[in-house]
Amino acid sequence: MFRHVVLFTWTQEATDEQRARVAAELDKLPGAIAEIRSYILGTDAGVNPGNHQFAVVADFDSVDDYLVYRDHPLHQAVIAEYIKPILASRAAIQFEL
Amino acid sequence: MFRHVVLFTWTQEATDEQRARVAAELDKLPGAIAEIRSYILGTDAGVNPGNHQFAVVADFDSVDDYLVYRDHPLHQAVIAEYIKPILASRAAIQFEL
Repeated sequence: MFRHVVLFTWTQEATDEQRARVAAELDKLPGAIAEIRSYILGTDAGVNPGNHQFAVVADFDSVDDYLVYRDHPLHQAVIAEYIKPILASRAAIQFEL
Repeated sequence: MFRHVVLFTWTQEATDEQRARVAAELDKLPGAIAEIRSYILGTDAGVNPGNHQFAVVADFDSVDDYLVYRDHPLHQAVIAEYIKPILASRAAIQFEL
């Protein structure tokens, strides 16, 4: 298995509605991109200061399947339309499970 | 379940030995801290530029169990002795699964 993890922080101007929309739009992707094996979205619980605010943990059978997801037009559309307008910072990694 | 995710980048001066030691020392924690339910360590696969270099994805039954791990002397010792000396940046999040 191959895991993709990405953490986001949002701009101060981002609204609750915009943040919720990111999660709602991403949540549609497992139904649309067959290569996704597991897709977990998380909003920071507020336990520690300085944290990132939103996480995606996505698992695939292979790096090639991850690349299908990464470059998929539906995924790229969510990034362009909903993530980038409120993105402050991003931290990502991919690794073999 | 409660998930803790942390991504690291290392200093340019960090050696392969130092980076491997972080993973080796963290890998001992599930055997020493009973509250850990799942503990996955990952080294970036090198697929995308600009990534973080090392990840920990740890699951617990509850936020309280996560806090036991966070504050555990053995965990704090790994942070102080092996992580902090080579730490360049850190991105973290905790969320309900």
